Amino acid sequence: MKHYLTVDDIASLPDWVDEAINLKKDPYQFEDLGKRKTICLLFFNNSLRTRLSTQKAAMSLGMEVMIMNFGNEGWALEYGDGTVMDQGTSEHIKEAAQVVSQYSDIVAIRAFAGLKDKEKDEAEEVINGFSKYASIPVVNMESSVGHPLQALADAITLKENKAKKRSKVVLSWAPHPKALPHAVANSFIQMMKKQDADFVITHPKGYELNPEITKGCTIEYNQDEALKGADFVYVKNWSSYSDYGKVLSTDKNWTITKEKLGNAKFMHCLPVRRNMIVDDAVLDSGQSLVVEQAKNRVFSAQIVLKKILEDI
Amino acid sequence: MKHYLTVDDIASLPDWVDEAINLKKDPYQFEDLGKRKTICLLFFNNSLRTRLSTQKAAMSLGMEVMIMNFGNEGWALEYGDGTVMDQGTSEHIKEAAQVVSQYSDIVAIRAFAGLKDKEKDEAEEVINGFSKYASIPVVNMESSVGHPLQALADAITLKENKAKKRSKVVLSWAPHPKALPHAVANSFIQMMKKQDADFVITHPKGYELNPEITKGCTIEYNQDEALKGADFVYVKNWSSYSDYGKVLSTDKNWTITKEKLGNAKFMHCLPVRRNMIVDDAVLDSGQSLVVEQAKNRVFSAQIVLKKILEDI
Amino acid sequence: MKHYLTVDDIASLPDWVDEAINLKKDPYQFEDLGKRKTICLLFFNNSLRTRLSTQKAAMSLGMEVMIMNFGNEGWALEYGDGTVMDQGTSEHIKEAAQVVSQYSDIVAIRAFAGLKDKEKDEAEEVINGFSKYASIPVVNMESSVGHPLQALADAITLKENKAKKRSKVVLSWAPHPKALPHAVANSFIQMMKKQDADFVITHPKGYELNPEITKGCTIEYNQDEALKGADFVYVKNWSSYSDYGKVLSTDKNWTITKEKLGNAKFMHCLPVRRNMIVDDAVLDSGQSLVVEQAKNRVFSAQIVLKKILEDI
Repeated sequence: MKHYLTVDDIASLPDWVDEAINLKKDPYQFEDLGKRKTICLLFFNNSLRTRLSTQKAAMSLGMEVMIMNFGNEGWALEYGDGTVMDQGTSEHIKEAAQVVSQYSDIVAIRAFAGLKDKEKDEAEEVINGFSKYASIPVVNMESSVGHPLQALADAITLKENKAKKRSKVVLSWAPHPKALPHAVANSFIQMMKKQDADFVITHPKGYELNPEITKGCTIEYNQDEALKGADFVYVKNWSSYSDYGKVLSTDKNWTITKEKLGNAKFMHCLPVRRNMIVDDAVLDSGQSLVVEQAKNRVFSAQIVLKKILEDI
Repeated sequence: MKHYLTVDDIASLPDWVDEAINLKKDPYQFEDLGKRKTICLLFFNNSLRTRLSTQKAAMSLGMEVMIMNFGNEGWALEYGDGTVMDQGTSEHIKEAAQVVSQYSDIVAIRAFAGLKDKEKDEAEEVINGFSKYASIPVVNMESSVGHPLQALADAITLKENKAKKRSKVVLSWAPHPKALPHAVANSFIQMMKKQDADFVITHPKGYELNPEITKGCTIEYNQDEALKGADFVYVKNWSSYSDYGKVLSTDKNWTITKEKLGNAKFMHCLPVRRNMIVDDAVLDSGQSLVVEQAKNRVFSAQIVLKKILEDI
Repeated sequence: MKHYLTVDDIASLPDWVDEAINLKKDPYQFEDLGKRKTICLLFFNNSLRTRLSTQKAAMSLGMEVMIMNFGNEGWALEYGDGTVMDQGTSEHIKEAAQVVSQYSDIVAIRAFAGLKDKEKDEAEEVINGFSKYASIPVVNMESSVGHPLQALADAITLKENKAKKRSKVVLSWAPHPKALPHAVANSFIQMMKKQDADFVITHPKGYELNPEITKGCTIEYNQDEALKGADFVYVKNWSSYSDYGKVLSTDKNWTITKEKLGNAKFMHCLPVRRNMIVDDAVLDSGQSLVVEQAKNRVFSAQIVLKKILEDI
């Protein structure tokens, strides 16, 4: 494997999930694999879980880790082709990507959607710029349109908590005061398409995600209907995709309550707004898998890095 | 030992001081103890000594170190119970503390007093939130009301420089242009209460510290009187406790001069404002122990981490 | 060697270049040299190459690395002698330098010119303050007036790409929208003076560098004339030195084009403004050495750290 940019870079989801669960039993079993290898983590946005779990995963593989908050520690990057750089940007992605490639063996990048300009966000100039010009493998630590390390962690969590052969998994929108990106929902959907499950998406009208991503998925606008018989309820806010980046509703009727959840397990990628996305009673109950999901971020990162290290 | 939150978590001050002095002779003697163990240092405020000395201490024990400036790299935390999180905070301490616990074996936290609201500061929501919800040991790298790593380093410095069985140690307030927290003074007093020494606190009227902390201590409002016959003069500014967070005086008659110091040793936790807190002539003389105190920060941190590692 | 502050601290440029080229073949051949040794990298300004390459170099020598963005993570430093510190600065360089010396074996510092006050910039208060008060070796990661790690990397690159015994090397000014420091140009010139080469400096009138540094160098105001027969063209913008810190011209007739370059190799320290400093066609051609130069930053840092480690 060269890059890990989307869920589609997973060669076999069931195999990777099994390998990750095996890694979890003894996280140091491959600690010689990354010896004398360096990963550079570049953050264009804030991070807690991704930062710590990816660092931890790399260290468990014996790698050296270099971390940069590119926004305030590095130089403002230019992505345009042929630009006369007489304005605010100091360095072109062409140089930055090649240069980082001289200093590390893998580069991992976080660069969120700006949510102002759909076309620009979908062009994924940061992560695509790096994967185009870097001479080393690139790992997506959440880009404008995807968060494949989260989706892989979610697949691990689903597998570990599965009680029956074919589960019902519901992805539900929930309210949030600010406009949030679509990346987590997109990657979760793409991952679910690789699973044998009864998968339903539910959200208010106007919150339809990119139809290319949801193609073939069941969409149910009635949340109660969607939640019926669910084994897992994955909850996430996202802003409107059609009315790009807008908050169309903060309707708390969509907040997940104990009653709505029934006997299902509750999942969320975190950070989560309590009593907006989900009630305290759910998060503080044994039905919540959010901390397990966060723990599995280490092992999704570790399996991805292991696959890449085995290839370089 | 589970957490190191206050000076009271020191099982035996004389034993720990002796062990730290022994560690100092060969800082790498326990470098296998922290193998495959990770410490996460979370900074909600600036730091020079604490950041570098704690990192150094952990590395000398063979630990991996992950550092985050939580304020600008992570998410704004919510501490309230039952809050509807529809405002500025993105993540609840309940999740943050549990999540960090998935990625590390020890978490160390710096979160200063805001000095606006005494009750809020004394509730110590950051460090107490982490110690309540984390499943791993928590180390205080200076909280609203205490700085126990500094106090332990000071105890080491006092022991190393002690010339007689029972020393006279004076804690003196000195002027500073900005309002400063009480944490260093509080922990120094709590540590001194565990020492066999002639201990006197001196400050202008209105600068009385929390009476629960100074209970049983000699307070002398006349600085000259207090300094008479001192072996060690520990100097520190703090803002008013009764008129909470206010600067009531910047009276430079309280600045420590060579003349005032006499033959005593000068101590300060640093950073120190020259010619406000203390004259250049004192800091630049052989009577100043400030650099030794800073060096001992490594060994106070290392002994604390060693005690914790031996217990997990 | 104690400190590495300027190009003049290189004992023998040809020997160091050869050693660096040898190191490059097997960067881990001295990985025991830095065992249990710590380097502290202090950044007062942004950095990409310097940050990552110095960190990488130190790790390849087996060192532990501690990194601080001093500006926003530490305390505002005071440099004046005898200052009454009742204003914005919290800690004096005297304490800061001594304290950092307690926690590490080498300290490396980046502190750019402010370009407001020539005398102040030339006093180099940050790097000189550290080298005066620290008890450990200090490495210059770009100061107000020099960037000797860059110059050493450039010497390595020149050696690796040299086609004939005596090359013609031209240092050419090029336009840039913002006022930039003189550090890179200064150190490049100082390094070239140690080389057997035909060396020419070209820039518009008013852009003369510090005459003490350019003393003995050929200065040619006609860029076309200067470039004739060049083997290497090193391009860099700098602000005026006589009209200190001013941008006197952004004349794009000075931009390096393919035509101007002829058969020469193109060099630049990066970050580079495309189509201001140099045309895309040059950077995207095989004549550009900029990525090689960036790679050699690892080995210039590594040879400097090796020399220091061998001495402590």
